[in-house]
Amino acid sequence: MPTVNAYAAPSATEPLIPTTIERRDVGPRDVRIDIKYAGICHSDIHTVRGEWGPIQYPQVVGHEIVGLVAEVGSEVTRYSVGDRVGVGCMVNSCGECKNCLAGEEQYCQKGNIQTYAGVDPADGTITQGGYSSEVVVTEAFVLSIPEGLDFAAAAPLLCAGITTYSPLHHWKVGPGTRVAVVGMGGLGHLGVKIAHAMGAEVTVLSQTLSKQEDGLKFGADHYYATGDPKTFDELKNSFDVILNTVSAKLDVDAYLSLLDLDGTMVNVGAPAEPLPMHVFTLFGARRSFAGSSIGGIRETQEMLDFCAEHGILPETELIGASDINDAYERVLKSDVRYRFVIDAATFDN
Amino acid sequence: MPTVNAYAAPSATEPLIPTTIERRDVGPRDVRIDIKYAGICHSDIHTVRGEWGPIQYPQVVGHEIVGLVAEVGSEVTRYSVGDRVGVGCMVNSCGECKNCLAGEEQYCQKGNIQTYAGVDPADGTITQGGYSSEVVVTEAFVLSIPEGLDFAAAAPLLCAGITTYSPLHHWKVGPGTRVAVVGMGGLGHLGVKIAHAMGAEVTVLSQTLSKQEDGLKFGADHYYATGDPKTFDELKNSFDVILNTVSAKLDVDAYLSLLDLDGTMVNVGAPAEPLPMHVFTLFGARRSFAGSSIGGIRETQEMLDFCAEHGILPETELIGASDINDAYERVLKSDVRYRFVIDAATFDN
Repeated sequence: MPTVNAYAAPSATEPLIPTTIERRDVGPRDVRIDIKYAGICHSDIHTVRGEWGPIQYPQVVGHEIVGLVAEVGSEVTRYSVGDRVGVGCMVNSCGECKNCLAGEEQYCQKGNIQTYAGVDPADGTITQGGYSSEVVVTEAFVLSIPEGLDFAAAAPLLCAGITTYSPLHHWKVGPGTRVAVVGMGGLGHLGVKIAHAMGAEVTVLSQTLSKQEDGLKFGADHYYATGDPKTFDELKNSFDVILNTVSAKLDVDAYLSLLDLDGTMVNVGAPAEPLPMHVFTLFGARRSFAGSSIGGIRETQEMLDFCAEHGILPETELIGASDINDAYERVLKSDVRYRFVIDAATFDN
Repeated sequence: MPTVNAYAAPSATEPLIPTTIERRDVGPRDVRIDIKYAGICHSDIHTVRGEWGPIQYPQVVGHEIVGLVAEVGSEVTRYSVGDRVGVGCMVNSCGECKNCLAGEEQYCQKGNIQTYAGVDPADGTITQGGYSSEVVVTEAFVLSIPEGLDFAAAAPLLCAGITTYSPLHHWKVGPGTRVAVVGMGGLGHLGVKIAHAMGAEVTVLSQTLSKQEDGLKFGADHYYATGDPKTFDELKNSFDVILNTVSAKLDVDAYLSLLDLDGTMVNVGAPAEPLPMHVFTLFGARRSFAGSSIGGIRETQEMLDFCAEHGILPETELIGASDINDAYERVLKSDVRYRFVIDAATFDN
């Protein structure tokens, strides 16, 4: 088994440090990827700090991975050495259940195998993520990165991109749809770009107007501060879809009341605590409150092709591996516009 | 203005008593209805007791009304004297907003005019409901009761029927749909009959198995007791639509987890308190939590025609006006199978 460089969390409370990990030998259906860039997702921080449950250490995280194919197994048909590829939040699923067969591997009835901190059914090992110089992934969970997409900037599409694209696509956003995006962070700013490219009328609902100029540049038609109580009066019954990217505990009733008849508020941010809500708010206009989790592999490829076609890329700040711990602190302070991407060449040092 | 007999609540804390009220003169578009039967809905009790907010007294309630046309205004085209007609929860709406124009008067953006305890925009008076010998309603809010439907039993269709039909119809229940109906009361037992007639596979989720025999007779394929914790393990990911007719505060997460991919739980029962729920439960299978309120006039007529075609009627217990106060106590104890209907001839005494 080849040994590769990586950055790992040694425990829930210590900074990430350089280390080496083993990757499996390339099996007949495997693709070995020479990682070029890895995005930093807030989930990485929750996971290494044990905030989403206990994990084994050391743990390498990162599920926004792009790189070049370095080796393929004997049965791989879709990729060749040198291809531009990506890996997102999943590296496998049962492949046999109703949801997998429908291309919705993210909802695999046996649970998909997450890119990090999951249990690899092949050998029982804990999966290790993309803060690393190489990764080996089964062909079916490898995406193709279209030539038109800048390689470094594309990495966050593998999680933040599909997490926002999938619900917008599923709830049929298009010309004439009035979409509100709640939160202007890593997910929200991509939600604005994608919803705009789909032809929707896009409104940003952010705590303040501090990112208004960016929001309008990304394609928003309107921008409101949720810290201003007038916003909720003015926008009552105004939206068909509200994409909530915020993980903090919001006043759900206040946001639901902004939906027009048959509108849906879909959460992609996931507060850990329960949210209280009044059923009467749903009654008022046959409203729905829904949740969406990343997207299937076929849909992720569709999202990458859509972003290439429409020239959509996340706004990123490129860092070296030794900057990861500082970057984590900045993510927690929302001090990033809008996503950190690690140059994987720096894992070699 | 004609004076008619009625039963009214003199205050929030006193029993209903016989009285007389005035009905407006028949205008050009009005239909005067000789009421034959009026159903008792749990909403009637909440309203007269001030549990949904303060109201003016005396107040006559009742929004499940059937009767014969006694007189029509000069511009009325759809009804003639002697026609079998019904009136449900609404007697008017603005008629001009987007939702009214779409036939969704129940979601009128200015608020529909409820059959009782509403403010009639024509003259500013408080609307008085169906526990009465006559009512005058504008033609557009009068429904036709098909010949095939037993007149006395049909009354509860005007509220309980449309309240369950509308969400089942809106969420496209049909052959192959796996529907769970939560609660086997006035609404739930009709939900079972209607979902079964739509071709769905129907499961009742009731606290106990005490009404199992009835449920299966009404068309349920399966019947489970929610008091048995095994029910929630066994039925995980089992339903496309859950119709929740219960107004009590349920464990929403437990019920949502019974939904399969893209399933919706739609509440027609409305607990007054907020319900806590975890967004993670929605994430697990792109689930939705929704609310639905009665149905539009066109859809209510469609429901009546559907019930006539499929021989669907509520199970009712016919009572006289002097039994209303006892009936209220029995409704509160769930001691009715499944809906009380008042013989309006007894208002004359």
